[in-house]
Amino acid sequence: MSHFEPVAGWLALDQAGRSLPQGLYISDEAFAFDTQVMLKSVWLFACTVAHVKKPGDFYLFEMANASVIIVRGRDGEVRAFHNSCAHRGAKICSQASGSGPRFTCPYHQWSYGLDGRLLAARNMPDGFEKGANGLKPVALENIAGMIFICLGDNPPQIGRAKAEIAEQVSLYNLDRLKVAVQEDMVHQANWKLVMENNRECYHCDANHPELNKTFVPYGFDNDMPVSDAESGYIAGQIARWKDLGIYHDLIEFPEGGWHRVSRLPMAEGTYAATLDGQPASRLPIWSVPEADSSSLSVHTQPNSWHHFFCDHAVTFSLTPLGPDRTLLRTSWLVHEDAVEDVDYDRENLTAVWRATNHQDGHLAEINHAGIATDGYSQGYYSLDEGMVEAFKDFYVSHARTALTATEGSAA
Amino acid sequence: MSHFEPVAGWLALDQAGRSLPQGLYISDEAFAFDTQVMLKSVWLFACTVAHVKKPGDFYLFEMANASVIIVRGRDGEVRAFHNSCAHRGAKICSQASGSGPRFTCPYHQWSYGLDGRLLAARNMPDGFEKGANGLKPVALENIAGMIFICLGDNPPQIGRAKAEIAEQVSLYNLDRLKVAVQEDMVHQANWKLVMENNRECYHCDANHPELNKTFVPYGFDNDMPVSDAESGYIAGQIARWKDLGIYHDLIEFPEGGWHRVSRLPMAEGTYAATLDGQPASRLPIWSVPEADSSSLSVHTQPNSWHHFFCDHAVTFSLTPLGPDRTLLRTSWLVHEDAVEDVDYDRENLTAVWRATNHQDGHLAEINHAGIATDGYSQGYYSLDEGMVEAFKDFYVSHARTALTATEGSAA
Amino acid sequence: MSHFEPVAGWLALDQAGRSLPQGLYISDEAFAFDTQVMLKSVWLFACTVAHVKKPGDFYLFEMANASVIIVRGRDGEVRAFHNSCAHRGAKICSQASGSGPRFTCPYHQWSYGLDGRLLAARNMPDGFEKGANGLKPVALENIAGMIFICLGDNPPQIGRAKAEIAEQVSLYNLDRLKVAVQEDMVHQANWKLVMENNRECYHCDANHPELNKTFVPYGFDNDMPVSDAESGYIAGQIARWKDLGIYHDLIEFPEGGWHRVSRLPMAEGTYAATLDGQPASRLPIWSVPEADSSSLSVHTQPNSWHHFFCDHAVTFSLTPLGPDRTLLRTSWLVHEDAVEDVDYDRENLTAVWRATNHQDGHLAEINHAGIATDGYSQGYYSLDEGMVEAFKDFYVSHARTALTATEGSAA
Repeated sequence: MSHFEPVAGWLALDQAGRSLPQGLYISDEAFAFDTQVMLKSVWLFACTVAHVKKPGDFYLFEMANASVIIVRGRDGEVRAFHNSCAHRGAKICSQASGSGPRFTCPYHQWSYGLDGRLLAARNMPDGFEKGANGLKPVALENIAGMIFICLGDNPPQIGRAKAEIAEQVSLYNLDRLKVAVQEDMVHQANWKLVMENNRECYHCDANHPELNKTFVPYGFDNDMPVSDAESGYIAGQIARWKDLGIYHDLIEFPEGGWHRVSRLPMAEGTYAATLDGQPASRLPIWSVPEADSSSLSVHTQPNSWHHFFCDHAVTFSLTPLGPDRTLLRTSWLVHEDAVEDVDYDRENLTAVWRATNHQDGHLAEINHAGIATDGYSQGYYSLDEGMVEAFKDFYVSHARTALTATEGSAA
Repeated sequence: MSHFEPVAGWLALDQAGRSLPQGLYISDEAFAFDTQVMLKSVWLFACTVAHVKKPGDFYLFEMANASVIIVRGRDGEVRAFHNSCAHRGAKICSQASGSGPRFTCPYHQWSYGLDGRLLAARNMPDGFEKGANGLKPVALENIAGMIFICLGDNPPQIGRAKAEIAEQVSLYNLDRLKVAVQEDMVHQANWKLVMENNRECYHCDANHPELNKTFVPYGFDNDMPVSDAESGYIAGQIARWKDLGIYHDLIEFPEGGWHRVSRLPMAEGTYAATLDGQPASRLPIWSVPEADSSSLSVHTQPNSWHHFFCDHAVTFSLTPLGPDRTLLRTSWLVHEDAVEDVDYDRENLTAVWRATNHQDGHLAEINHAGIATDGYSQGYYSLDEGMVEAFKDFYVSHARTALTATEGSAA
Repeated sequence: MSHFEPVAGWLALDQAGRSLPQGLYISDEAFAFDTQVMLKSVWLFACTVAHVKKPGDFYLFEMANASVIIVRGRDGEVRAFHNSCAHRGAKICSQASGSGPRFTCPYHQWSYGLDGRLLAARNMPDGFEKGANGLKPVALENIAGMIFICLGDNPPQIGRAKAEIAEQVSLYNLDRLKVAVQEDMVHQANWKLVMENNRECYHCDANHPELNKTFVPYGFDNDMPVSDAESGYIAGQIARWKDLGIYHDLIEFPEGGWHRVSRLPMAEGTYAATLDGQPASRLPIWSVPEADSSSLSVHTQPNSWHHFFCDHAVTFSLTPLGPDRTLLRTSWLVHEDAVEDVDYDRENLTAVWRATNHQDGHLAEINHAGIATDGYSQGYYSLDEGMVEAFKDFYVSHARTALTATEGSAA
């Protein structure tokens, strides 16, 4: 498809150890390609089961031309459907989330079940088949309560990732959590730059005072230098996790490079990413009978990361809004029985990551602004930016594959 | 012209009984094609003679790259000219309407007569011909006071339409009316979707409580089911109109499909589309010596509809502002001698259609939003959407003809 | 490059004595061409030495994808660099101006000297060369304190212009001036129309009451008609300038058409473009020991003009922001020792040109608005618009050359 010719050219300019060529970060063509092709060829994080707790609860996942209803059925299963009426295409759900016994299109009142089947349509001509006019399904995977969808027709295999993520995440009982706070923030930067920012802590020292209170650099990258004291502390923590039966070696983007699962030591004496390092909620969420100075981090390509603490969890996901605009959605989850202002405080729960998100947004924005200038050329990554390159490699490899598939289907 | 290649492809996907393919509703290419080609090949409703009552009165019609001055000359004739100075192209009239003895360009004071002739231009080189540097004319038809223009060089024939519309509309004496209220509303939807919305009442029951007070479904579509009581009432009305000499069988998009003229029964005991069904103005406008529970509706493709009551008239017209933005302009006309707050009240005059416009705008917007998603496919029309299809067929047929003509001229 | 094909077509439509074809004024393609190609092939006015008075002072020049740091080094030299970090491309300076001992990238703290050399970069892999990762230089010319840059690789020769401008401008001692006021204004018009507006006074009579107080038409165009009284006054002034040794015949866009230098008589008894015609600042800036009713005007293609009075100077420059948006930046310079509210008053200093800028902005906007309509065709210039044509010819000739060079490099 000639429309994506420049993208093919830019992908060919990718170099090991260096950032991507300008066009992939700033152009309209790359944005169109990313949202119409590349991001439809992979699994994307959408939400958690806590976002659709009860039968009839729905949640919209929207990205560029995709509007997907994620809904829990009467049978408790979570499913995904395109949010467009089979009649004349009207958007059925306009609210970002809600609940109801069925979906009724506001335009001409066609109605659909929670399983997507068309239930009623007035005054249609002979030969019209209700069975062929339901809501169109979207592929969905529920991994220990984390909901991933794939907008394309051929979702990649994720069997190993599913098992490895579930083993660790299931400790945190997502089906017993609720969404305490959900916040959207728009960064004026390409989504890939917001991702790259998330994938290194080379920038942390100078930019994240709040996060640095509980953060151990080792936690981010096992190769980062630590002091002798820290080294002993970390070794002790790992031994303790083994005793508790919750230890697993770092899983770092194996086979297809989709997922990373790591149990991270936190600063000694801290239990959660709060300003004072103490748990944010009085009700523990994990299955281990005691608090612990560790967090579980899950990173998935190309649009999410998640931190699980003994008392709460935080999920982050990106969706591109334009070549230079990205939505960052952050959800803080606590135990479903936790009561606001009694068991947890919104400000305390969200303070560290809200501040960090703002700081990262600013960095992504100056990064985008500079890349968009004539002075940019593909620069060299430091030794601390291995995960940035892992993201870049995932992007380039899936972009190439998806582009080839597109060309094949167009031929 | 390669620029419109995708449009040709989408036009080829049109199917009887189904909505248009996505690209024609949402793409930049279709917007460019519609405003630069298709909509220039047909007659468009611009305004009424009541908008330019006196010699020197002008009114701007603007759509995409067209800015047209509609002006009443000293001789009483209404003419149309492009609104661009022959010197260096400046826009001569910036106000949406006004009045004056001539047009003077604000930039370098070149001045033109109401008939478009260049009157004065300072310090021009030898050989400059004033006669060749007037304002460029635009084709215009005045049909019983309704002003239509064609922006292209080969306006279609509309002889039959002109006669059939004039026969009925002339009853309402547009040259004796004034514009009581004119309102603009922008719908975040493609103009074709705003038109489609206007062309069916399949959505009315659930969405238009104010309009439904005076509306009889039969009035919209002679095939819509009515009760026995309604049926008798309608038959009586028709007999009465025949007695009054104002009856004409429904004229429904004959020959070229441009116009529809229908006399509609209203809910029994109501006289106008007001909240209480009573006339909105104390001064009748039509030539019949008594009030009547009927309205005359005129629908023209592709951008207007009009309702005439015994006491006032309402005209509606659309102009595309962007692929997903449409201007809906509504004008309420009353007798030129009617005095505001004495003979009519603005709120009462406008309440029903203002509410209906808002409701329709919302529906067109969710329609556009859903069509713009990946879940959309060309859906089946119900039995109540025949006029939607008539609009669609007019669009597709004129689009194909205009596209072919463009290709011819580019070859 | 096929991307600029339409531009080549429009350039071929240029006609002597007439305005440019529509596409060059309004299209996205022409905007892309102008900012990526044409405007990079010529010298552009950026600022003055007064904008970067001390070592470490920097000033940003930004246009479309260019962001250039203009900085005075420790050695007093003014240099220009692209504003993008060699690491991952972040924008280093986000403030429009500032001062500091070095440049440190806010993202990962890479730091650079005022001469652009990379000073520090943490934890880079073996083989990384600091010497090859400095800030990229941009060509710069300092002409008697006026700073011009060229964003392309092959800056045109400007030897003669440099000498001729410097001879007159050096009288005004720019290195002893300071920026009293700098104002930005955005005109909703193509940059070429803002330039054309600047290059004629055919529009002045009807539009610039403030400017007309001190302005003599002759000053703008030696061919404009003047009265006998004015003629005698002008002859007297010229004789006086010869006595003072500051006279030079009009230099009007010779050799390549880049520059114009003219000493202009002002209205008798006035000394500066102020509302009362009196000097705006008590401290003279020029080297002549007495005040004089003259101004020196320097016009350069394609983006600047400048007026020097005995007590202050005003510089104007344009940068395109979009096809229909142009930034006009105006700086008022006074003696570096002049004290605000003691020696000069901001309002008095800026009143005439601020008003004139607003008036011209409105004219450029209606010009653009009208050119963007279907009614536009290339109009004839009056006898008073010779400098408009000089600008147009410069634009067309450099556009053609730059386009050919682009095609050559793409082949």
